[in-house]
Formats: sequence, structure tokens, C-alpha cells
Amino acid sequence: MHIILLSGGSGKRLWPLSNDIRSKQFIKIFKKEDGEYESMVQRIYRQIRAVDGEGTVTIATSKTQASSIHNQLGEEVGICVEPCRRDTFPAIALAAAYLHDVKGIPEKEPVIVCPVDPYVERDYFEALKELGEIARDGDVNIALLGMEPTYPSEKYGYVIPQDKEKVSRVVTFKEKPDAETAGEYIRQGALWNGGVFAFQLGYMLEKAHELIDFQKYEDLYAKYESLDKISFDYAVGEKEDSIKVMRFQGQWKDLGTWNTLTEAMEEPYVGEAILNETCENVHVVNELNVPVLCMGLKDVVVSASPEGILVSDKEQSSYIKPFVDKISQQIMFAEKSWGSFRVLDVEDESLTIKVTLNPGHKMNYHSHQLRDEVWTVISGKGRTIVDGVEKDVEAGDVIKMAAGCKHTIIAQTELKVIEVQLGKEISVQDKEKFEY
Amino acid sequence: MHIILLSGGSGKRLWPLSNDIRSKQFIKIFKKEDGEYESMVQRIYRQIRAVDGEGTVTIATSKTQASSIHNQLGEEVGICVEPCRRDTFPAIALAAAYLHDVKGIPEKEPVIVCPVDPYVERDYFEALKELGEIARDGDVNIALLGMEPTYPSEKYGYVIPQDKEKVSRVVTFKEKPDAETAGEYIRQGALWNGGVFAFQLGYMLEKAHELIDFQKYEDLYAKYESLDKISFDYAVGEKEDSIKVMRFQGQWKDLGTWNTLTEAMEEPYVGEAILNETCENVHVVNELNVPVLCMGLKDVVVSASPEGILVSDKEQSSYIKPFVDKISQQIMFAEKSWGSFRVLDVEDESLTIKVTLNPGHKMNYHSHQLRDEVWTVISGKGRTIVDGVEKDVEAGDVIKMAAGCKHTIIAQTELKVIEVQLGKEISVQDKEKFEY
Repeated sequence: MHIILLSGGSGKRLWPLSNDIRSKQFIKIFKKEDGEYESMVQRIYRQIRAVDGEGTVTIATSKTQASSIHNQLGEEVGICVEPCRRDTFPAIALAAAYLHDVKGIPEKEPVIVCPVDPYVERDYFEALKELGEIARDGDVNIALLGMEPTYPSEKYGYVIPQDKEKVSRVVTFKEKPDAETAGEYIRQGALWNGGVFAFQLGYMLEKAHELIDFQKYEDLYAKYESLDKISFDYAVGEKEDSIKVMRFQGQWKDLGTWNTLTEAMEEPYVGEAILNETCENVHVVNELNVPVLCMGLKDVVVSASPEGILVSDKEQSSYIKPFVDKISQQIMFAEKSWGSFRVLDVEDESLTIKVTLNPGHKMNYHSHQLRDEVWTVISGKGRTIVDGVEKDVEAGDVIKMAAGCKHTIIAQTELKVIEVQLGKEISVQDKEKFEY
Repeated sequence: MHIILLSGGSGKRLWPLSNDIRSKQFIKIFKKEDGEYESMVQRIYRQIRAVDGEGTVTIATSKTQASSIHNQLGEEVGICVEPCRRDTFPAIALAAAYLHDVKGIPEKEPVIVCPVDPYVERDYFEALKELGEIARDGDVNIALLGMEPTYPSEKYGYVIPQDKEKVSRVVTFKEKPDAETAGEYIRQGALWNGGVFAFQLGYMLEKAHELIDFQKYEDLYAKYESLDKISFDYAVGEKEDSIKVMRFQGQWKDLGTWNTLTEAMEEPYVGEAILNETCENVHVVNELNVPVLCMGLKDVVVSASPEGILVSDKEQSSYIKPFVDKISQQIMFAEKSWGSFRVLDVEDESLTIKVTLNPGHKMNYHSHQLRDEVWTVISGKGRTIVDGVEKDVEAGDVIKMAAGCKHTIIAQTELKVIEVQLGKEISVQDKEKFEY
């Protein structure tokens, strides 16, 4: 089974846990059997691996997410990086070219595309396998998963099947309707389009070449920025007559809002929290290292992160986006491929951050024009290079770097550093990278 | 008018803004006409000064609060420091001895004692003046303010007056009753005991000498720790027959819980907050530098500080104490006479704090046995002394102090420093002070 996982954009609907550089799929919110927590992307990757140890998993994602993916899934995971965001059709076309031209997967092989963020169980992955087999048969060009609708949602597209069989031909696609029309579709036997489909790799390459002028993967990658934003449903799905839909009745939760996300939580809270006995249907996700105390609340979600604090009625939480759009704020926390950083203090002419480097990782060798920096190593062992001079460092060592000086730090063990930035104009743009 | 302001203990009822070393009276929550915020103690001190520029104001408080009081009211404010907590009778006795023996106030002068935390307007201070005049007349030994009760509260003691005149003799005191008994008292014309009373200084000294064996202020101060904990009401008030009560009908809010505190707030929030249009009767007090977003809440208070986050139904917030008692946590923020500190990061073998020194102030000259420290000056100018070596410092300077070395920093301007503490056992107890 070859799977393309679409790891989407910078959802603000789960603020303060998601932001411009941290998407909901990276939030560690689901308790595993061992008591540790995992994120959506870790959960789905683990689930796929449990069902199918053989096939390839390729995560189609943006540059900005690549480091978070490596950080959470390791260096070996297959990633097809989009140079910029161009919606699902270009992303799938690029991933298809990647599988064929880079990974050498034959054109006859079925490929399954699915989003990274539904909350599902093992039966879902069994269904993906079946979907792949329908695509392998070659009877139709596309096989998709139709979710049995539970209410006339306005959030989903609808698929109208020919009959009530488990697998049937698709008569037509319907765009996201209003609630009344959705009710009508459901009475006609329509299913939700969950964005999961399978096809033979050759079919998708053919569609890609029809709509985009390119030769091979590298070529497509190079011209990616010039492509139009267009969804797979619009570019291919709705124009294709040869489609089958397979009904899926198992658990499938779209974790797009706090309301649905908290439904998938095993326990009322993640992180430090106290809920008194008068709390009812309250969920807390607390990433700060101080406690959250909740008293006398009903149907409320509380989430605290270095970015901010949300306290919302669960229903109301769906309307969060315009409010978060108004909050323009410095990124306070980020996971990178090499580790993570957290902003500790912001002053007019200084910024203090804590940097955690994973063992064996390093920063880029870089310099700043307009700021001095001071590192105080607080734990671990490593090596610094400052203007070409190498030095072993450990907890307690202090390194001063004047503006203009080239510097990096390499972690031997996990290495934690307090970095104080000092200057009149401190900006993430003020950074020049060098080879060493 | 000579006023003794009783600045009480470490209320946990307004957690996370109040804690063991930071009491509710120091929270800057009330908006002044100039748009700045002031605390309870700042508000009441400003109000007293507006009504009476002449008399003395002496704040009776504990050692732990003295620095916060100086920080908020300046160095000149009169403080009578209790060496330890011994309830209101010893505190008032000590303050009376202080006024007489240290300040030289004659025994015939009336003194008014009142708590620091009611939310009141100008008429309250006019009433205090009148109360002082009743005490000056010498017709009775104690004059107290009786608040017209608005409901049968179980929180207050009750005073039963002889008649319905504005000023009348007190028949009896009643301890905090249950609601039913309180209702009965109110039908009998009882008033709330608001803890405000006036007496001639000589009377209080006489009572103090009756109950405590001491000579002068210094003597009482020295033996303070050996005194029994006993309230003024119990030790004096309830045993005294010669008492008058003056009715007070003006605004008088006891700001002891989040419920009552938020009622006194001019605006729905202090600090960074967004409340969407579906919020009703919601108050936010946010001391963090990230936003709080509230959606669809009703009758809720949200408070965020470096100590933690409270989200509570307003009614329920009165029951906070046992939950806060369970939270045992490092102090994350404190105001001191010399400035303030805030904990930025806690690791197993390091602690990173930000220290702000007020201009002209300094730390004690001190050393630690079990930790090294690194200072990075992030703003301002000052002077460090490390093992006797003095040095001028400014933003960007780094000072390393090994365990055992004696050190201090003196602020010329406001001075901010990032201090990284490094060691296997970091504790506030590990500190030895020296003269320099």
C-alpha cells in the first residue's frame, strides 16, 4: 500500500496550540497505552505502520512543516515537500511525480491519498487497503471513501452513489451545500466526501500532464510556484465519470475544531490542570508549566500555550478564526528538525529564548548584523564554533557573540541553552547563513 | 487623623494573582482617571491622602509585605512591621506603641484602625473622620463603623445597636452567624462589623499593657513572636461595654473573592484580552504578555499570572481556597523593595530568572554554596561587586559567579538582568549575606 498523507496548512482554528508555523497535526494531545502523548501525525503514522509495514508513506507538505514532521516521525519518513502552498491538486501531482520519478514506483501500483487529521481506528486503514484493491482492479479510475453522514453538515462535500451497495458507482459530486440541501442529499442516499481516494499512479500522472506542462518531478518542483491553486476535487474528481465510492461506517472524526478535538480526548485534561467537581464537560489542554484551575464551568474548553490562552464555550469555539486573525503576535514556541525554541522574555532591546538541540543536531552556521548574543549552556554537552574557533562546551559555559560574528552550536547530548539577544532591532530576518 | 491600615495576610482566595508572598492588596487592577492601574493599597492610600493631607498613615503589616508596600507607596510611607503574624490584637497593640513611642503621638489623640482592602469612595473617609471625632470626645472607649447589611451574610460579625440613630451605643457583638441567625439579627436592626474602629491612643496602650507584659515599643517588638494569636474583637471589642457604633450606608465592598473583586472593576478586562460578543458578565485579569481569548462564556472570571490560570464561574470562585492549598508551587513572580523578579524557566539543574532593579537600589551582597550564576545585563546601567572587585556594567555585559563567590549588583538607572542559576540543588535557602 502506497499512501500519500496530505499534511495541510496552518490552521488557526485550534489556537493557541496551532499558529502560522505550528499546525494542529503536531499537537501532542492523544494518550497512548504507555501513558505518553502523541500528535495526530504521530498517531496516524503509527496506525498505518501497524496495518501495513511494507508500503510507502509519503507526507505531502510544505517547507515550513518539514522540520516538525522530521522532529515527530524521525529522519527516515518520506516527505514530498511543496516549495509553496498550491492546494491539493498540485500537491498530489507533485507527490505522484515524486513516487514515480524519485521512488521508482510503477504506474500500475495503486496509491491512496488521505488527509493527516481525521481521528480514526484500525478499520479505517483496512478500508484504505480495500480502496487500494479497487484501484488496482482498474475497473474505475478513482475509488473514494464515502463516510456515512450523521447530520446534514455544511462542512463537507457530498457524493451521490448509484445504489446502496458497499461499493457503487458515483452518480455525482455535490459541493458543500447549506443545511437544508444537505438534508435533501442525505435523503437521496448521499455520503460525505472525506477526501480519501485511491488511483493507479499512472492515472494521476496522466491527469497531471494533461493540466500541467512538465517532464519529470524536478521540473514540476521547479515550476511549482507558477501553478494555479486548485483542489483535487475541482480539477479531477468532479470531471471524472469513472469513479466508485466505498461506504465507510467506522469511526471517523474530523478534528478541525476544539469542539471535535476535545471529543477525541481520552481524559478531561492534558498538562497541569485541576477541575473541581462542579465542572461538566470541560476539557483543558495546558502546555504551560503552571496549573490551570477550573471551577463551575460547563461545556468549556480551556487551552493555554506560550502563544496565549483560549477559554471558550465548545460550540462557540468553531467561530474562533476571525478573532485569531486579529491577534498578530511573535511566535513564542516552535519545534524544528534540530529541536525546539521557546521565547522566555521580550524587552524593547533584548529577547531571551531557550533553545533545545536534539543529540547530534546543530544550528546553521550563521551571523547577525544588528544584534549581539550570549549563550549560557544550562544542560548537556556540545561544541561551539565562533568565527572558526571550535570549543567544547557544557552546562555553565558562557559564549558571547558580537554582531557580525559567525557562530553555531553542535549538540553531542541533548543540549539546552539560554540565548539572550541584544540589539536595537532584533528580527528573525537578520540572519546570514554560511558553510563551515 | 491618625490611621492604622491593617494590611493582612497572604490571601489565596484571589489566586493566581495572590499567593504566599503577594497579597491581593498589591494587585494593580483599578483603573485611575489617568488610565494607569493602581492596587487596593495604592487606591486607599491615595484616597486617605485626598481627604486628609495632615494626619499620619501607618501600615501595620508583616515583614514579607514591607517591600511590596515600599515598592508601591514609596519609601516615605509609615510602616509598623510585625516580626511575624499574630492576628489583629497584637498588631494593633504594636502599632499603638509605635505611634506613641516612635512617632510621639499623644495619648489623647484619636486613632482609626481600618483594613486595607475594602473598595470605598470619599464618603467612607469622611465617616472615618467623624469616627475619630467620637473617639476624641471621650464619651466612649471605642467607636466603630457599622455597615448597613444588604443580605444575611455568614461572612461578617454583627453589631446590635441600642437604637436607630446614626450614632448609638452598642448592646452586643455577635460572632459570624449562620444565614438564618443572620437574618434574625438583621430584623433586630443589627449592622455588619466592618472592622473599622476608633479609640484614643492611650486607651489602646492601656489595653495592650493589661494583656501583654511590656514597657515600650522596642520591648513589645522583641517579644512579639511569643505573643498569642488573638483578634482585636475577641481580646477587646467583645469585652468592652463603652462602645458606640456609627451607621455607614455608603459604598463598601469587601474585595475578598473574585466575585466581589470583579464587581469593582471598571472594565471587563485588565491586560491583554479579547471577549467575543457572546460573552456575558465575564471578567479577565491577565498579567501574562500573551492574549486571553474568551468566547461564549457567562458569569466567568479568568485570571492568568506567572503562577497559574484560573477559569471559574463567579459564584464558584468563593470556594477556591482548598484547591489552591493543594497547589504547591515555586513562587514565579515577586515584587521587592528593590524591584522585582520573575521566573522564566525551570529545569532540573538550572533556573532562569529576570531581575529588575529600581534605580538606586541593589541586591544584598551575598553568596551561594551550591550554585553558580551568570548575569547577562539586558538594559540599564549599574555596578557589580564580585569578591570585592567593582565594575561598571551595562546592557550586553556578562558576569559569571562561581559557587562561594560574594556578589551584588547596584542599579544606577533601572537595571534588568537575566540570571541563570546552575547547580544540582538550587534553593532559596542557599544564600549567605555579607556586609560590604
